[in-house]
Formats: sequence, C-alpha cells, structure tokens
Amino acid sequence: MSDLPLQPTARTRLGRGRHHAVDDRAALHALLADALVAHIGVVVDGHPVVLPAAYGFDPDGPDDGGSLYLHGSVAARWLRAGAGTDVCVTITELDGLVAARSGFNHSMNYRSAVVIGRARVVEDAVERARALDLIVDQMIAGRSATLRTPTRKELAATIVLAVPLREASLKVSEGDPEDEPEDVAAGVWAGVVPVYRVLGEAVTSADAVGLAVPAHVSARAGGPRDPAPGQ
Amino acid sequence: MSDLPLQPTARTRLGRGRHHAVDDRAALHALLADALVAHIGVVVDGHPVVLPAAYGFDPDGPDDGGSLYLHGSVAARWLRAGAGTDVCVTITELDGLVAARSGFNHSMNYRSAVVIGRARVVEDAVERARALDLIVDQMIAGRSATLRTPTRKELAATIVLAVPLREASLKVSEGDPEDEPEDVAAGVWAGVVPVYRVLGEAVTSADAVGLAVPAHVSARAGGPRDPAPGQ
Repeated sequence: MSDLPLQPTARTRLGRGRHHAVDDRAALHALLADALVAHIGVVVDGHPVVLPAAYGFDPDGPDDGGSLYLHGSVAARWLRAGAGTDVCVTITELDGLVAARSGFNHSMNYRSAVVIGRARVVEDAVERARALDLIVDQMIAGRSATLRTPTRKELAATIVLAVPLREASLKVSEGDPEDEPEDVAAGVWAGVVPVYRVLGEAVTSADAVGLAVPAHVSARAGGPRDPAPGQ
Repeated sequence: MSDLPLQPTARTRLGRGRHHAVDDRAALHALLADALVAHIGVVVDGHPVVLPAAYGFDPDGPDDGGSLYLHGSVAARWLRAGAGTDVCVTITELDGLVAARSGFNHSMNYRSAVVIGRARVVEDAVERARALDLIVDQMIAGRSATLRTPTRKELAATIVLAVPLREASLKVSEGDPEDEPEDVAAGVWAGVVPVYRVLGEAVTSADAVGLAVPAHVSARAGGPRDPAPGQ
C-alpha cells in the first residue's frame, strides 16, 4: 500500500484559515472509506461540469498513489469527455455547522479530499470487474460477493475510469469557531451544530416483499455512523 | 419570483436511466433550501478544480432566473479564477443506497442540481450584505439578524460571487431498484437503505460556556430532518 505522504501540488493545495491541510495518506484513505458520494469535475466545451457519482478506491491499485474508480454509462457524454484528461474528484463529508459570533467567522466543519489526475479508461477485464465490485462495496460492504456476475452486455454498456490518488489534498475543519477577541468579550453565544449521516433500516423492494434482508445489508443499515470527528 | 420552468441546455441536461430530470423550478428551490454544501467547479490553468463551499440563494435576485451566492477569501485563487467565467455549481443531497440484484443496477437515490453560469463579482454594498446574510441563514435560519454588522476590513477580505439560476437542471432519483425480470424471478432480495442528514444538539464553544443556546440555533439543531423523499 502506498503510505507516502500526500503530495499536494499548486493545483490541489487547499486553503487557508482555521481549516487545516492534513498531510497524511491514512487520513485520506479513512475519508475515502467513509464517504459515499464523489463530485467529479470535467471540462466540457471549455467550461466545467460537476456531477455527483458513486466511487470506489484501491490504495494498492495500479495508478500512482493508488486508484480511485468511477463508472458510468458509455453514453454519458461528460464521462467520455473526462477520459484521458485531467479531472478533479472531490469527496466531502459535512460534520458540523460552525455558528460563530460574526458572519465573517461562520463556517462549516468538514473533511474534504481533492484529487486531480489524468482519468484512465480501465480496459483490463480483471481490473474492471474489481473496480465495479469496489464501487458496489463502497455503498454496502460485502455486497458484491452476493451478486451475480455482470453480463457481457452490461459490461459493454459501462465505462470505468481510474484516477491516480497521487496528487491529492485533504482538508479537515473541526472544533469551535474562532472569533475575534472583542466578539468573545461581548458575551455572545457561539458553538457548533453537529451534522451526522445516518443510515436507516433497509426498505425491501416492492418486488421482493417476504424475502429476508441479508446480513450484509442489515449490518450497514439501521444505525448512525460514529459521531463526526472534531465534534 | 421566477417561476418559469427550468431550462436545461445541452450542457446542463442530465442523464439517463431510472433517475429522472425534474422540470420544475419549485423543486429546484426546495433542494437549494434544504441542502448545505455546494460543490463548485471552475477551470484553473485548463483543468477543473472542484471545491466544497457554503452557499446562499435568492430566487428573486438580480441574475437571470434568480441568484446563487458564493463567498470566500479574496486570497482564494480558485474563486478569483472563477470570477467572470462560466462555473458549475452542483448541490447534491443523498437519500438512499439502492441495493439492486446486480452490480449494474446498483445506484443511489439522491437529489442533485447542476447550475452552470457566468460568475458575477457582486460589488454593490447592499447586495453583498444581503448575500452574506443569506449564506449564514442557509446554515441556520434567522442567525444573521442576531450578528453584528461586518467590519470594513472583513468586507474587504471577502469576495462574493453570484451565479444565475437560469441554466439549471435538477435530477431526482428515488424509489426501488429497477432490476432485470430474470433477476427478480431468481428470488434475490433487493431494497433501499435510506440515508438521512441529522443535526445534533448544539455544542457550545469552550469560550462561551454558560451562555444559553439561542432559540434560532436550538430550533435548527437536535432533530432529524424529514425522511428523505422517495424513501
């Protein structure tokens, strides 16, 4: 596994302010393991397009720094536009609303990874199958092993992209608001409203009523995730 | 208020499949009112950069279709890069994990708005103040009215961008997985794991201990939002 530090470059280097950059590949992998939705930016006809999508990742994948996998329909113009170009994949989990004593110091607590890299079309059948399993298991761990094999038609309809995890940055914002001393002295309340992502009990499909919810699904559902870090 | 239908163009038109486009400006406004984080795509040095940010919006704002507001530090290179260019603002709320009977039919339930438009730097003092208030109140309704006025120094350090809401598309994915008839016939379980965003009880800042949590904060905190639509 790649355990080199993150290598933010001028184009992935994040920010400023009370939020801080985390130079730790394990923390990047922890966020990637926890999150569910990626926002993928590609340039189409000279302007940016950002779309949400599921993803998977393999820290030992063949790309530099490991591989982040995306998939979609071969008919999806934006995904085809991204193939072979530099794309930006941003993965964010919101952890809290930071209610400061001034509008200026209001902010949010969150963890956000920004990955920029050349999107490679995955052609190898074994890697494609593994990438598609990783994307399913990112949603519900252990599920891919319970599913039938994809058909040739399904595979032909699917494009899989890999983005190297080498050029990545991770930003974590946590803790109390940072207010101006004079605002603190004024005796005004400030604090954080924590935000959690909660998975509910699984709802069985109308066409599957009577079938038992599999253990790997009930293990995923039904409880809150751990309280957000930093709050 | 603009109640014209959405006008997806070739560049905002979304997708395919069981997910469906919603041609309804009220539904767009409802998502914008509910969500907390926007992912903003800009083109920097020829490649896309996508960063998460708070936002606010005004359906009656001066831009075509209403105004979506973003703010940040004047020192934030990516925000400055976006000023005067076409940017993409994507706002997504995840509602469920759709556990189908095949990997191919796995997906998520979500609501996602994609707005593409020329980012205008807001210069007018009244509009700037209103935009900054909207961004604070998007997090916690009613909060801006309780805060002191921004200082001249704070205002000088802040850039406010407005993006017209005219060129927008909304995609909603909801309900049960859609499986192949032969997969349904095989008697395999399928369903949806609902995903909720839950706001916890407010945590008072270490430097505000003993002060009462204001009513507008406790009204925001402490309860789950309504169950996600469609699940």
